[in-house]
Amino acid sequence: MQAPLSRLCVHTITTKPLALPAAIAGYQGIGASGITVWRDALLPLGLAESKKHLAGSGLSVVSLCRGGFFSAVTEVDRQKALDDNRRAIDEAAAIGAPLVVLVCGAVPKMPLAEGRKQIADAIAALVPHAAGAGVKLGIEPLHPMYADSRSAVNTLGQANDIVAELASPQVGVTIDVFHVWWDERLETEIARSGRLNAIFSFHVCDWRSPTRDMLNDRGVMGEGCIPLRQIRGWVEQAGFNGMIEVEIFSNELWQTDQSDFLRKIRSAYLEHV
Amino acid sequence: MQAPLSRLCVHTITTKPLALPAAIAGYQGIGASGITVWRDALLPLGLAESKKHLAGSGLSVVSLCRGGFFSAVTEVDRQKALDDNRRAIDEAAAIGAPLVVLVCGAVPKMPLAEGRKQIADAIAALVPHAAGAGVKLGIEPLHPMYADSRSAVNTLGQANDIVAELASPQVGVTIDVFHVWWDERLETEIARSGRLNAIFSFHVCDWRSPTRDMLNDRGVMGEGCIPLRQIRGWVEQAGFNGMIEVEIFSNELWQTDQSDFLRKIRSAYLEHV
Repeated sequence: MQAPLSRLCVHTITTKPLALPAAIAGYQGIGASGITVWRDALLPLGLAESKKHLAGSGLSVVSLCRGGFFSAVTEVDRQKALDDNRRAIDEAAAIGAPLVVLVCGAVPKMPLAEGRKQIADAIAALVPHAAGAGVKLGIEPLHPMYADSRSAVNTLGQANDIVAELASPQVGVTIDVFHVWWDERLETEIARSGRLNAIFSFHVCDWRSPTRDMLNDRGVMGEGCIPLRQIRGWVEQAGFNGMIEVEIFSNELWQTDQSDFLRKIRSAYLEHV
Repeated sequence: MQAPLSRLCVHTITTKPLALPAAIAGYQGIGASGITVWRDALLPLGLAESKKHLAGSGLSVVSLCRGGFFSAVTEVDRQKALDDNRRAIDEAAAIGAPLVVLVCGAVPKMPLAEGRKQIADAIAALVPHAAGAGVKLGIEPLHPMYADSRSAVNTLGQANDIVAELASPQVGVTIDVFHVWWDERLETEIARSGRLNAIFSFHVCDWRSPTRDMLNDRGVMGEGCIPLRQIRGWVEQAGFNGMIEVEIFSNELWQTDQSDFLRKIRSAYLEHV
């Protein structure tokens, strides 16, 4: 039997007020097993020092968040985005993260199909660099409410389409329940991701009613309406047995005591996921 | 050739600060041809007096907004919802509106498939009353960001499924660009709505970037990223030639001078729709 917290991972953005060493200590303190590092969390200490903290922590480094934002009106800007993503891949390799999660980008008024084409082209262009660095790329479909400016990939089906088209072992999907829970095709597409051997990571949180802010009002698991156990079941049925990553953006929760918040995450994970 | 404003209709909610007589005068003032009445706009004057104002206005009464909110945990509450929808149908008949638009409802944590089943059952139960009153019912799919608590019908495909299942000339769809613009299956599903003879009404506004409020931050046409002309083209290709209804919820715009706002709507309609 698995230890109950052997698959619990926390994202540094979840405890945004904490610097990396404090985040590490906090996650150790609740018995978590993994950490996903957001790029901003690496800035204060730099890569080498951050890596030392991570390597000595006993926590698995699950992924680096985030690359992406590929689509752009000009070729120059698309190249800049590729350069930045190559840096993200290098940072992931430097801290021992096997995966970069991709929030793929969208440009208001650019047709979404054109955006997805640019995204697929960009990811294809990154594959050699990612393979060389031993880092995988996880396409994270974003909720349709972010289709204007954050991602033209708004369903797991669209992410799977890109994975199937590129057919590279380097490219898969990141499934975040917040973005996909509403989709009637979710079970089917999770199964398809599984057949593609493409479920690279799995993020959990909850959808509050009402959601008071489009970006930063996610709930702790159990506070909302997402059928977490059901979706976890589908993901595991499709062959995924990796970390379960708690990624919560919340202006409200960031203002609370982060140790209390982490204890709440631990209980919610055990009770609701 | 059609007169340029012969298909322009405005929703009373768009100019929420205006009472019905002032709204009517305002829409006449910009040369609009239609009005869609929200139920709250009928309360101050009552049905008979409201009807007098509408009938004397020269504006077509396009629809009554809104019925729906069918799904509920208890049978008692589902019956209450049906009763309220029968009243909405009667109100529509009383003011000469040929259509009631349905925001179908959702209950947090109720599985969305169960919600859709309750919705289809409820609409089926309303068909005889609607037919008797000579009023049609338009299922409006809502954006997935409202799947928790406003509607379990989140794509035009799901609305079409219900229309096809019920197979009643009384039941069709209301297509609002705000809710459906992101959907890669939109063109296909609009064509299907057309084949079902089911496009009962068409709403326009725009999606601002950023959208600062999940409910009340819609933009005037042209202010955002929705491909309005393209979607209008698909809808017309599918056989729709009815009114084009401007439905904008905006805390910001409700605070401005409503005559200026209406002039802005007129220009935006002519330039961008």
